[in-house]
Amino acid sequence: MKMNGIRQPKKPEGELVVGKKRRFSELDLIRFLGKTFTRADAGLVRGIGDDCAVVRLPAGRDLLVTTDSLMEGVHFRSSDFKPEEVGQKAVAVAVSDVASMGGRPHYLFVSLFIPPEMEKRKVEALFRGIGESADRFCCLLAGGNISSSTGPLVIDVAVVGSVARGRTVYRHGARTGDGIYVTGTIGDSALGLRVLKSGDPKLIRKYSALVSRHKLPTPRLREGAGLGEFRIASSMIDVSDGLLLDLTRMLEAGSVGATIELDRVPVSPQARRYMEETGIKSLEPLISGGEDYELLFTVPKKNEKKLETLALSLRTSYRKIGEVTKDKGKLRILSRGKPIAVRKKGWVHLDSD
Amino acid sequence: MKMNGIRQPKKPEGELVVGKKRRFSELDLIRFLGKTFTRADAGLVRGIGDDCAVVRLPAGRDLLVTTDSLMEGVHFRSSDFKPEEVGQKAVAVAVSDVASMGGRPHYLFVSLFIPPEMEKRKVEALFRGIGESADRFCCLLAGGNISSSTGPLVIDVAVVGSVARGRTVYRHGARTGDGIYVTGTIGDSALGLRVLKSGDPKLIRKYSALVSRHKLPTPRLREGAGLGEFRIASSMIDVSDGLLLDLTRMLEAGSVGATIELDRVPVSPQARRYMEETGIKSLEPLISGGEDYELLFTVPKKNEKKLETLALSLRTSYRKIGEVTKDKGKLRILSRGKPIAVRKKGWVHLDSD
Repeated sequence: MKMNGIRQPKKPEGELVVGKKRRFSELDLIRFLGKTFTRADAGLVRGIGDDCAVVRLPAGRDLLVTTDSLMEGVHFRSSDFKPEEVGQKAVAVAVSDVASMGGRPHYLFVSLFIPPEMEKRKVEALFRGIGESADRFCCLLAGGNISSSTGPLVIDVAVVGSVARGRTVYRHGARTGDGIYVTGTIGDSALGLRVLKSGDPKLIRKYSALVSRHKLPTPRLREGAGLGEFRIASSMIDVSDGLLLDLTRMLEAGSVGATIELDRVPVSPQARRYMEETGIKSLEPLISGGEDYELLFTVPKKNEKKLETLALSLRTSYRKIGEVTKDKGKLRILSRGKPIAVRKKGWVHLDSD
Repeated sequence: MKMNGIRQPKKPEGELVVGKKRRFSELDLIRFLGKTFTRADAGLVRGIGDDCAVVRLPAGRDLLVTTDSLMEGVHFRSSDFKPEEVGQKAVAVAVSDVASMGGRPHYLFVSLFIPPEMEKRKVEALFRGIGESADRFCCLLAGGNISSSTGPLVIDVAVVGSVARGRTVYRHGARTGDGIYVTGTIGDSALGLRVLKSGDPKLIRKYSALVSRHKLPTPRLREGAGLGEFRIASSMIDVSDGLLLDLTRMLEAGSVGATIELDRVPVSPQARRYMEETGIKSLEPLISGGEDYELLFTVPKKNEKKLETLALSLRTSYRKIGEVTKDKGKLRILSRGKPIAVRKKGWVHLDSD
């Protein structure tokens, strides 16, 4: 089934092969989607129901487009994630890329491959999750595509957003002497995934805050937009693949280097407690774990006051973790004032202490 | 790996789990993509290489967005399709939705899930196919996402296109008395799929024209744009799911009915030959088979001359197959002047003759 238009392997009466016991018709699903996603806005000339969505952007804004996907067994285990959580996360993760450019998301296009054993109520729950995230991030489901899957559940989300012309924050743009900053705390999601993987219900309950951060990251939309619109950040990226790896990418894009102080990387109290209890002594799983969806950005010295004002007004915590250097491609990492070796790009080896 | 940004299950040095024997690194693939997709245009402020693509549309045009997906085993068999053919078709099919709104495609965003056994050269071939279709339809690969798959090959293509404001042709809009038209010929793709499924190399060679139309449909971009820009068509849809089913959708969207003459449905000489040889006597497999990617559209009587002129200038064949009636939701099908029964929505039962 195609939400704009219809495309799927043919069955009489457009029946969708979903749920071995409870197949539901395309019409059922369209009705459900119609009930669930009724909102529209001035820019959405035409949403679900035609071959394409028709979108009109306000003048003076550039379009941002990004896609992100989750596959069962690759990006999540269905034993860990409820269908609504899969829907919520898929949208959150895709939207984070818009935040990291300083933009705002507007429209979502969701391609879904539904395995035959997935029941109708689970498909509906997944869409409810998509709808919850869409509401939370002030965007609308405007189209997409639904197919049967021969294997795992696959969800691919394309986001159309916008940014004021000239206020886009790219990965490149960092200059020597700029401070390197990160919002929130790093590593909660990676530790949350460890907790989930343990399969220990007691542990999962105890560290529910970490698990939540893994299951439902919060894209830093207001922060990203503020850093862009007030021209505070010189470069920005979201931490999706680990602080160090994403920092490396930002440095490469800007042809600069950096020195960061490991001890300044912001770690949450829950993460500290988990590390103490489980005897994790290095920060490696935190800074290379990924899926934080915090913003990593650089700020020229002259903008430090503006940054402080923005963070106060948004009630966002942020931390300076280092500085941009002119040593192109070189990342120096200090721990307690001493340089430590980086073994592999994006993977850091820490001397255990 | 993310083409704008990077997201994939973590491996040291960002190695992509592709091809059990010949894993290739993310860097390899980025280099390959860099070599293959270097073109840019004035509207693409930023393509592959950041968290989002940044796009600027000319004033006075609305944005069209659509997605379409192919999954191995659901939409194609890898024994039938070479990787480049999968890439080519995935783009063609997605772009057809832009044609059916009267628009032009500009940017492609490709999400790919690559199974572990797929070799590097096949992944490259797939991207070459994407590039060939992009060139053919005058659009650019502007971003996307690459992941390992736990199962089948999945390719999801989002297309960003545009249409002159006020010239969009929707599914709705047909008025009583409008003629119902279709471009090209109907049913080649469905018969081509039968030929492919036979697995008989002789038959496949003999009916290569039918097979080609199934493997690589031609979205009717120039025709769609012409029908929209010159305000010829009152409604339009692309035939992706079978002539009858898509016609039903168009009628429903416009709250009208239709009478069509089965004998007027344009059938290619190859299709006729195949039907004769294999003893297919009804048109059912042709009008309910789908994947034609021809345009089905309605034209008010006063525009008939304009349509003729357009078709001549584009050297496109088209055929009037019926007329819009006021009987909301009612589709009358005539064969040799006599009405025949429609058994199921989108599936027609023909008395064999």
